[in-house]
This record gives sequence, structure tokens and C-alpha cells, in this order.
Amino acid sequence: MGAKIIRINMTTLTSVMEAVPKEWLGLGGRGLTSTIVAREVPPACEPLGKYNKIVFAPGLLTGTAAANSGRLSAGFKSPLTGGIKESNAGGTAGLNLERLGIKAVIIEGLPEEDKWYGIHIDKHGAAIREDAGYLGKGNYELFTSIGERMGKKIGVLAVGPVGEYKMAAANISVKDPDGNIRSLGRGGGGAVMGSKKIKYITIDDAGGTGPVIADPEKFKQQARIFAKAILDHPVSGQGLPAYGTNVLINILNEAGGLPTKNFRTGRVDHPEKICGESMHDLIKERGGVISHGCHAGCLIKCSQIYVDPQGEYVTSGFEYETIWGLGCACNINDLDDIAVIDRIMDDIGIDSIEGAVLMSVAMEAGILPWGDGKGVYRLFDEEVRQGTPLGRTLGNGAGSVGRTYGLTRIPVVKNQAIPAYDPRAVKGIGITYATSPMGADHTSGYAITTNILKVGGYLDPLKKEGQVELSRNLQIATAVIDSTGLCLFVAFPNMDIPECFTAMVEMINARHGLNMTAEDVGALGRNILKTEHAFNLEAGFTSKDDRLPEFFEEAIPPHNAVWDVTGPEIDSFWNF
Amino acid sequence: MGAKIIRINMTTLTSVMEAVPKEWLGLGGRGLTSTIVAREVPPACEPLGKYNKIVFAPGLLTGTAAANSGRLSAGFKSPLTGGIKESNAGGTAGLNLERLGIKAVIIEGLPEEDKWYGIHIDKHGAAIREDAGYLGKGNYELFTSIGERMGKKIGVLAVGPVGEYKMAAANISVKDPDGNIRSLGRGGGGAVMGSKKIKYITIDDAGGTGPVIADPEKFKQQARIFAKAILDHPVSGQGLPAYGTNVLINILNEAGGLPTKNFRTGRVDHPEKICGESMHDLIKERGGVISHGCHAGCLIKCSQIYVDPQGEYVTSGFEYETIWGLGCACNINDLDDIAVIDRIMDDIGIDSIEGAVLMSVAMEAGILPWGDGKGVYRLFDEEVRQGTPLGRTLGNGAGSVGRTYGLTRIPVVKNQAIPAYDPRAVKGIGITYATSPMGADHTSGYAITTNILKVGGYLDPLKKEGQVELSRNLQIATAVIDSTGLCLFVAFPNMDIPECFTAMVEMINARHGLNMTAEDVGALGRNILKTEHAFNLEAGFTSKDDRLPEFFEEAIPPHNAVWDVTGPEIDSFWNF
Repeated sequence: MGAKIIRINMTTLTSVMEAVPKEWLGLGGRGLTSTIVAREVPPACEPLGKYNKIVFAPGLLTGTAAANSGRLSAGFKSPLTGGIKESNAGGTAGLNLERLGIKAVIIEGLPEEDKWYGIHIDKHGAAIREDAGYLGKGNYELFTSIGERMGKKIGVLAVGPVGEYKMAAANISVKDPDGNIRSLGRGGGGAVMGSKKIKYITIDDAGGTGPVIADPEKFKQQARIFAKAILDHPVSGQGLPAYGTNVLINILNEAGGLPTKNFRTGRVDHPEKICGESMHDLIKERGGVISHGCHAGCLIKCSQIYVDPQGEYVTSGFEYETIWGLGCACNINDLDDIAVIDRIMDDIGIDSIEGAVLMSVAMEAGILPWGDGKGVYRLFDEEVRQGTPLGRTLGNGAGSVGRTYGLTRIPVVKNQAIPAYDPRAVKGIGITYATSPMGADHTSGYAITTNILKVGGYLDPLKKEGQVELSRNLQIATAVIDSTGLCLFVAFPNMDIPECFTAMVEMINARHGLNMTAEDVGALGRNILKTEHAFNLEAGFTSKDDRLPEFFEEAIPPHNAVWDVTGPEIDSFWNF
Repeated sequence: MGAKIIRINMTTLTSVMEAVPKEWLGLGGRGLTSTIVAREVPPACEPLGKYNKIVFAPGLLTGTAAANSGRLSAGFKSPLTGGIKESNAGGTAGLNLERLGIKAVIIEGLPEEDKWYGIHIDKHGAAIREDAGYLGKGNYELFTSIGERMGKKIGVLAVGPVGEYKMAAANISVKDPDGNIRSLGRGGGGAVMGSKKIKYITIDDAGGTGPVIADPEKFKQQARIFAKAILDHPVSGQGLPAYGTNVLINILNEAGGLPTKNFRTGRVDHPEKICGESMHDLIKERGGVISHGCHAGCLIKCSQIYVDPQGEYVTSGFEYETIWGLGCACNINDLDDIAVIDRIMDDIGIDSIEGAVLMSVAMEAGILPWGDGKGVYRLFDEEVRQGTPLGRTLGNGAGSVGRTYGLTRIPVVKNQAIPAYDPRAVKGIGITYATSPMGADHTSGYAITTNILKVGGYLDPLKKEGQVELSRNLQIATAVIDSTGLCLFVAFPNMDIPECFTAMVEMINARHGLNMTAEDVGALGRNILKTEHAFNLEAGFTSKDDRLPEFFEEAIPPHNAVWDVTGPEIDSFWNF
């Protein structure tokens, strides 16, 4: 039996299995979610209204023996940005869907009654059950409870209270192999799921036989080359496994591109208190886990299990961008404070980048003093989790906080919070923030590679020359990687080791019986980006939405760099 | 000495007098404010940032002996809509500026220090004084205090606490001849004034000699014709003087176009408790004032002084749209409750249309029960006035409340609240809401005239045919009237009595020594609208912003009318 699509209608509370249309067969992950959203969702519709849909899709290589191939994409019209959105994460849900031969789950409509639902997917299809039992519960309690009821292997997608409230910064949480939390983080997918009154989706892969590999021998051979390249590259083979993504604190601080106190300076005065190296030593000393994978088959294992002084689990998937947001944008100088905030953000189900940056805007507004980690925890626990008036403003993101308090220093593009790299000091990432159809999103065209890490060559981060081309090439390549189900970090070896990229393409060919060339792969990436951009234009975006906030005209120390890329220069991004 | 412009820079805390550029000589009111804003304000700038400006300009006939010629316009980039904005009001400020020969006041820049200022304008120019003495005070206390200090004739423009907080629904209050309150209501001008840390502007006309009439004899003759037409027309001569604008409750209820409970039905079940006829009898019985002008020289006197059962002043300028918003959208069935809410909205300085509609959205969100007048008062007094977290969300308008609470039933266009006429049951006004560069604004093209009141002919309100042309003609004509300093209600006789329109044009000619034809007047109106539209396009608006909210696809009783005007039909509005 071939791959199939499950279509769930929350108005009629029914589901059907559909054959995969021929033109979608060569698509997966972001390529598939963006194609379906662009085809089926009216671009100008209300993101929380009846015409929006959520699409979940494993990638083209998800669930295969390819290293780092465990990711699942979610696509929808974003209540945060008003544009098209794709988020992807590890965890077990994508692998389980792939094993069941499910190429996509499309959820549409809104329930007519004020009732909440859980969806269960297994080899027979999808069942929608009324279930208000977990309402108001955090993700940790929900994941533990479902794990106890349905077994550790169950895949789970869920929303926390933030998603129930339909707050625009709500994420969709994904159970990882240990029962902990990964996130389909950005853009408010949790609010869309909340609007459809779906508290959770469970995926039982029992009896699943996928994925079927068209050419197993070739696949095996290419997978070996691919795995070796990941292990050979210094970033994916050494830096990330040892220190996690938080290795970047010292690197960006050194580069003067670490935005501190709501983007006022490019350096923090307490890097040693929050950096990856210190975190590594602390976890080791306390008996936590330094290197840990977010899904089966991960070779990089950039995650870790952060424990408290008593050695008790606090959080995992403790990423640089979150630590930056709390440690630098909010100026909190205590890693334990930051870790418990990371945990509560996962628990209530809020994107941890948006969550951290919105707190720096709350500090800008005078709601909290700079550096008040305990205060940030309290706001998440007592305001956002409870859905108080202040909690609602916070839970709707950095733009919401800034507008509500009459600020002009609001670090957002397309209303999504700007993450951990200053666009004035690292101009390539500024182009990505400005132009990405996703809103400010470092992952969509991670120019830090070539601007800072010297992966894929080097381009002076302080000069604007060449940055549009760099960002464009990265965004096209990223659209492809986000379609494979591979972790984005395979981009590091992909950029420096030619046989790594070839192996990725050949694994796709071997998996699906295709004959894609490198050229075809580039065309796929360009097509995805253009599809997303066209959706946004139909939703009412213009080139004015491809701009950084006004305050980036201020010089940022230590380089006194300003954002000097002109409108027409930015707009040339779309000339392809 | 000729007319002049006062330019006030809040960064340098200095002001200069400038000659009026030749191309601005034939402009006034909205025509002048929109021209200056379009010329001097970067369309994509932060509305609360340093590049925005506020421009105050009396109209071409303000301060003359023409009946109903007392209005002042304010122009700025709106923090509510993100587009260009003009609001106008009666009161004494416009007359005083005109007497001083001041064609426009342009205020630019932001103070560098966290200090508040008052500005005093007199025959010597403008003086900027640090003054934190009125901070946090309501407009009634401020107007009384300034009146006592500076005399009853002083012109005052001020912001209440809502403007101090830079909330996007903040208005600019204008002292009327009795020391009571008129409002430059819509679009958040008070927030722009608050961002510039200006609590108030006083205008002393002592020694002023303007306006100078180029042809006094002709002016006098035409002014007589004009005045007679106003008095002869049934709407401006009879309906409005007797019952005020609130005469419309029964008319719109009868037409099924009175949006009730956040636009769920087109009729209210308690019209007799809130309608103009009942209000007239109540005011008469209690010894209030039935008919009262908002500025010297008004013949229509649609205002009134509403008093409580003890005969004590409660509010004035108590308009249909406010009474509708509270009485129908919020379903409050007690006119005394509505009156004290109107008063507090004036006092804290919030646009009373946005203020009423945002409360209906708060009811939609479950913050208050439908019809809870005491609750609405409490939210304005204890939340908005105090700047609490909930107060901030409310004070930023109906869109803010709806987005913060994850709603989709949010009656706004360009983020401005839709006023008192249902666009499904009165399609001409729907075209105005959709297309006006001001956002949803009934005054910008008041199709109620021809759809309901049968002024200027009749066009079936339930049919879409001809409505685009009707709205376009009205919007062009309104842009002209808003430029004259005349009250918009002169449009009623203008539409039905040909010599009224001619007299208006000839008064402008006589005042300024011009030779404008009816054709020139039309060209002026078209040019203003196009200038405003072009500004909005440069600010990032598209045709997608010229759309009503999705929920208007629902049928509204009693006619079960839906919004059936297509996108291309709406967009044909701009074909002129």
C-alpha cells in the first residue's frame, strides 16, 4: 500500500484517508506543508478562523536509516506573522507517522461546539475523541500521563495552556524518545491547534511497516558517506556534540553580535556565567547528560539534559537562542534561573525564542527590571499560564507587548521576534530576518555559517556586500533540508564536504526511486521559497514587510555597526 | 502680515514661524494636514517614533462668519491603523488659531529627556514649557484648571491619561466654548501627542486679527444663502437640532442596520430606552439643554447637555455612534449608564467609538457580560485610566482586545473599529469602511445619506449596485468639506440644495481671493483622497487592507443580508 494522506475535519469530526496526489509524491516536510497550505488555505483568511488548516508532514528521509532524519514539519497560516509558516522538530511523532506510511495529516475546520478533543492516529486511520481531561495541564504532565497510558513509544503532539488560549506565541510540543519535550516552536502553530480545540494528537506506529526504500543497497552506501561527513565536520562532529548550540555565546560575544538588553549592545558582561563551555562543566559536575539526541538516529546529539544542583532533571533541548534571549536580551546572569524558565516555557507551550524576547520587551516597558530571572519565571507561571490580562499580552509575543505598551523598540520582523544574532553586526542574518517568508527566523537562512563560523567560505559580517546572495543561497538550501526531515545541522558538512551533499540527494533518490540532480534540488528549494512568498503577497504582504525595525538605524557597540542595507538592495533578494 | 506656519521641534524644544509655501495657500483642514503629512512623514515610519509628526490646521473657512465653520483638523500617521489620518472637531482651538493667522502647526521630533511639556501659542508664536503638573489628570480637571488660570476664551488641545500611555485609541480633546470637551477622536492622535510628551497646547487669540476676507461683500451674501440652506433642509434644520445625531437609533433600527451584540443582529430590543426621541424628552424633563453648538457660529446645534436626575451636568456632544456602541454593540439598555461612560471616555481621552466597540469585543471575549454598563465604566475608570495590563489592551482598541484574546469576530478595518451602521444591511457604508484611507470611518463617505436618509437621491441599501460610485462621490466631497473647516453636516443641504454647494465654493473664493469652480473643488477632493491612498500604499497597505473582516460573510437578521461585494468590485473604487 502506498503512502497516504489523512484529512481530519474538525467541523464534522470525521477523517478520511486519501491517496497522495501525483504532484505531491516528490515532496515532504516543509516542501509538502507549504504546497498544501498554499493550495488549500485562502491567504487572506483569519489565522484562527475556520479556513485555516494545519498540515503535519514528515520529511522525504524521515524514518529512514539516514543519520539525523527524524524531523516533522508543521505548516499553517501563522497567527503571529499573518503569513505562511513552517516549523519543524525532532521527537517521535514524525518517525511514527512515517512508519504508518502517512505522508501528511491535514486538519481543517473548527468544531461547532465548545468541546475539546484528542486525536488518535494508528494503522487504521485517525479517531477524534472528545477529551477535556487534560485541559489546563502543562506538557510535562500530559506527556507523562499519556506515556503511562499508551507506552513510551507513542508519538505525541500537544498544546499547553498557551495554545488553549490561542495566544500567537503558542508552540506545538512534541514528545522526544525520553518523554521530554521538543517544540514545533515558531509562529503560533499551537494557537491554530487550539483554535481547532485539539489538545493533543497521539500516534501509535504499531503494525506500521514504512518507510519502504526503493533501492536499499544504494541507500545504505550513501547513508554511510553521509554519516561519516557529519562526524568528520568540526561543527557537527565536535563543537555541537560537546557544548550544544550554546557553544555560540562566546563566539557571538567575541564577534560583537550578541544582542544584549533588547539589542542595545553586541556584547554581554557575563558570558562565562551562561556560555556552553560553562554549561558543559556544570552538567558534568552535577551528573547530567552532556550530549543527547532529540530523535532516534541522531549523530550530532547537540541536546543535553540539564540538571539542578541535586542532579534532578530540569530541562533538555536547552538551546543557544533561548539562553541568549534570557541571558543576554533580558540580561539574566544565572544559568539555573534560565533553565527553569526554559522548562516552564516548554511546559506551558510557548516558543522559547518568542518567550525570551517578549520578556526583554516587557523589561523595556518597565514591567520587570533587567535581569530579573525570578520575575520572568513568575510572569510565565502566574500570568501566562493563568491567562490573566497581562499573561494574554505576553503570550501573544514580543510585538504584542511592545504595541500594548506604546514602545518603538520592538525587535520583530513580520511580528516575529528577532533571535540571537544582531543584524547590524552580522549583516547576512539581517537579510534573512528581513526577507524570510517566515518572519525573523535565523534557521531559514543561517548566514552565521559564512559570516562567523567560516563554514562554506567567509564573508565579512560587517559589510553588506554579498550578503543578499549568501542569504538567498542559504534560504534555498534550507528549504530543501527542511523538506528532507534531516536536522538543519547537516548543512555544516553539506557546505564544506561535497560528497555529503551528493549523498543527501542520492539518499532521496534511493528512498523514493527518483533521479534528482543537484540542479533539481536547487529548483525544489527555489520553488518552495517562491510558493511561500507568493502566499504572503496574496495575504497582503509587500516589500515594506521585508524590513527591519526603525531602531536598527542606531549604532550597536562594540563595532558601532548600523543596518545600512537599503530597501532596493533587500528587495533584490527576490530576483531569482 | 500673511498666514504663517508654526513649526515646533520637540527634540530641540524650539519653534519657528515659517511663511506658507505657495502651493499650500489654497489648502486648509484635511487637505493641508494630509498634504503636509504625505510630504514630511516617511510612510513606513514608527507612528510613535521620532519621524512621525502631528499637524493641526484650521479649514479654509474656519473662523469666518460662515455658518458652522469652526472646525480644526489634526493629521498624523496613525498608531491605530498604520496609515495616514485626519480627525477634525469643533471647539475653540481652531477659531483661535485662525484669529492668530496660523494656517498650520507642525509638531515634530521626540524629547530626549523623560519630561512632559505644555505648549502655549499666542501672537508671538509658540513657547514650550516643561510642565508635569497635569500628568495623570483627566480632561475635565485640566480644562477647568486651565480655564480658571487663562480665561474662558483660551483654546485648549490636550491628552488624557490614555494619550499619556500612548494607547492607540487615544484622542486629542478640544475645549468647547463652555469649557466642555470635543474630540479629535479617531486614529490615536492622542498617542502621537503623548509620544511627543505634550500634555496640552493652549492657544490665546488676544491681538489676533484674522481671518482677513478678500471680498467681504461677496462673502456676506454667499454666507446668507448658505445659512438659509442649512436651516431649510429637514435634516440639518429640524432632525439634528431637535434630537441630535441620536435621532438615528430608531432610523437604523427600523432599517435593520443597527449592529447589536458585536454585529450579530441588525436590530436592538430596547430602542426606546436609548433613542434620540427618548433622550430629548428626558433632557427636557430634567432641565438639561436639548440643542447646543460645539463652536461659535453653529446653526445646527446637534449637541446637547445631558444631565442626571438631579439636573447636574453629565456630558455633552453625546453622539449617536457612542450611544449605538454602548447601547447596541454592548447591549447596555440604560441611557444614564451610557452617559456616564461617555463622560469618562472624554475625561480619560479615548475615542468614544473605538472605546464603545472595544468594550463589545471585551464582552465577546468574556471579560464582561453583555449589557454590563457598570462594568464598562469600571474598566475605563479602574483599568484604562490606571494603565493596568488589561487597561493597556483595552486602550489600544478593538483590534488589540480581539487579537489579545484570540478572537476572530473583530469588527475593524485597517484595525479601526467599525461604527454604528452594519455594512451588510447598508452596503454603501460598507464600501466606505473598506476603502477609506482612514480605516473604518462612517464620516469619510457617509452613504447613510442616500442609502437610508434619502438625501441626494436613493439607492437600495441591501443591493450592491451603484454603492462604489456613491461612496466614491461622497468620499471625494467629504475630503473637500473636511478641508473647509465646515461641519460635515452641511453635506445634507449641499446634496439637496444646489445653491448651498455653490455658496460654499463662493465663500472659499471670497475668503481667499480664488476663482475655484465646482470642477476645481472636485479635483481638490480627488487629489486629497489620492494623496492619502498613496501614503498608505507606501506605508505597506495593499488591496487586502481594503476588505471587511471575514465574519461579515454571516447573514445578519432581520434581512439576512451578507457582505457580497467582491474584492475586484471594491478595488474599482480607486479607478478615478
